[in-house]
Amino acid sequence: MNQAEPILPRTGIGIDVHAFAPADDPQPLWLGGLFWEGEQGLSGHSDGDCIAHAAADALFSACGIGDLGTHFGTDRPEFAGASGVKLLGEAARIVRAAGFGIGNVAVQFVANRPKFGPRREESQRVLSEAAGAPVSVTATTSDGLGFTGRGEGISAIATALVYQLPEPGQPTTANGGQDA
Amino acid sequence: MNQAEPILPRTGIGIDVHAFAPADDPQPLWLGGLFWEGEQGLSGHSDGDCIAHAAADALFSACGIGDLGTHFGTDRPEFAGASGVKLLGEAARIVRAAGFGIGNVAVQFVANRPKFGPRREESQRVLSEAAGAPVSVTATTSDGLGFTGRGEGISAIATALVYQLPEPGQPTTANGGQDA
Amino acid sequence: MNQAEPILPRTGIGIDVHAFAPADDPQPLWLGGLFWEGEQGLSGHSDGDCIAHAAADALFSACGIGDLGTHFGTDRPEFAGASGVKLLGEAARIVRAAGFGIGNVAVQFVANRPKFGPRREESQRVLSEAAGAPVSVTATTSDGLGFTGRGEGISAIATALVYQLPEPGQPTTANGGQDA
Ligand SMILES: [Zn+2]
Ligand SMILES: [Zn+2]
Ligand SMILES: [Zn+2]
Repeated sequence: MNQAEPILPRTGIGIDVHAFAPADDPQPLWLGGLFWEGEQGLSGHSDGDCIAHAAADALFSACGIGDLGTHFGTDRPEFAGASGVKLLGEAARIVRAAGFGIGNVAVQFVANRPKFGPRREESQRVLSEAAGAPVSVTATTSDGLGFTGRGEGISAIATALVYQLPEPGQPTTANGGQDA
Repeated sequence: MNQAEPILPRTGIGIDVHAFAPADDPQPLWLGGLFWEGEQGLSGHSDGDCIAHAAADALFSACGIGDLGTHFGTDRPEFAGASGVKLLGEAARIVRAAGFGIGNVAVQFVANRPKFGPRREESQRVLSEAAGAPVSVTATTSDGLGFTGRGEGISAIATALVYQLPEPGQPTTANGGQDA
Repeated sequence: MNQAEPILPRTGIGIDVHAFAPADDPQPLWLGGLFWEGEQGLSGHSDGDCIAHAAADALFSACGIGDLGTHFGTDRPEFAGASGVKLLGEAARIVRAAGFGIGNVAVQFVANRPKFGPRREESQRVLSEAAGAPVSVTATTSDGLGFTGRGEGISAIATALVYQLPEPGQPTTANGGQDA
């Protein structure tokens, strides 16, 4: 890429789903980087923060460098049980080290609870600080349908834009080693 | 942002789901800004037009300024029962007032019916006029699986690109007040 | 569009779902452009490769020129039973013929199996060659929830960026004939 070429963005997508822990196994709820007092938590090896996880996966997806399993799998035990905010921050670091800038990340989650509106800006602030780029978060329900409608879990979906940086010395494998 | 900087887009995402109204409660079907003669309608406080709602939510998501609940909640009773087309038009107005231009919106819905192909261009025209920008609409099924496969409802998913406008005098909170 | 204007991208979205074939009807599994030895296959008129199908649908969606049904429906019998890779290649050709360049495509699939990580780069290479642009593929599960969690099928979701080319002589209907 030479200086005459524009910086073209790349898009990515990430879905993350976690089941609520059983009623007889009280767990803290961490969602969107926040602790939710009095709400039943999600299952998961980490804190189950599907908003932060979907955001991280969308960043990896945009760069073509794998997914959460690639980067935070069993060969990196230091991330076992890590918070979603920590994973998102590390994902952003990996993405930048691969030669990409981050445009923005947008996440929507689908669930009956918790009521998100009053803490939306707080969540966006925490996640944006972790990513070093704007992260927007929105919420909806599935009108009583499917596993989210039955209150069995939370689904989050994210999209991200990244930019391959034209800096000299960037690794040429920044597009994930694809030859196309 | 000064004139030397490129206009970088932001991506957003929106999902909207509505259940079909019960068989013993005939309702008109509004979908993709169109009335569908002879088809059972969707539940919802408004017309249940999940295509238009997903498009509006993706626009808000891209800007980081909240969601349908933020902008069309109970504190704006003038939008109670409003059509999806009206909500999409108002969402586009809000987005532009916040300092963003709209690149495009793409929506896909998942459902067994109605058969969309013959009216796709008509729907795209109506929604594009409402948004003042290209809105594409596509359709698929879920191969008999899940709530859409069982015919319990319609799910729509949208992605949008917006551009923070470099005009002087734009509010500096156009990125949703995030500090990142 | 004149030369002074920047090349603005357009975003698109595509979901594709296929059920696993019944246990008493052994089928080969094709997914992400690869054959998966020893895995039960998917139903579908074609090879059921929902990763390739979602990628193609996201490209069409971004351009506003219809969907898989529009382009590979019953009026084009030469594509009946075609592989996902062949459909993706043809979709990319159609998109370019409509006056668009392809930025990238990102696909994530949701399923309990197959285990994707070891063949991710191989899949990305095959799909990127078909599209003539980077295609990233990632994988996740739905934590045991919904039809993917019950192992009934595979869901794939894709997002794509395309660019309306400023070349002279491009058809002015490249945005799908929309007047907005
Ligand atoms: Zn997770
Ligand atoms: Zn709705
Ligand atoms: Zn398919």
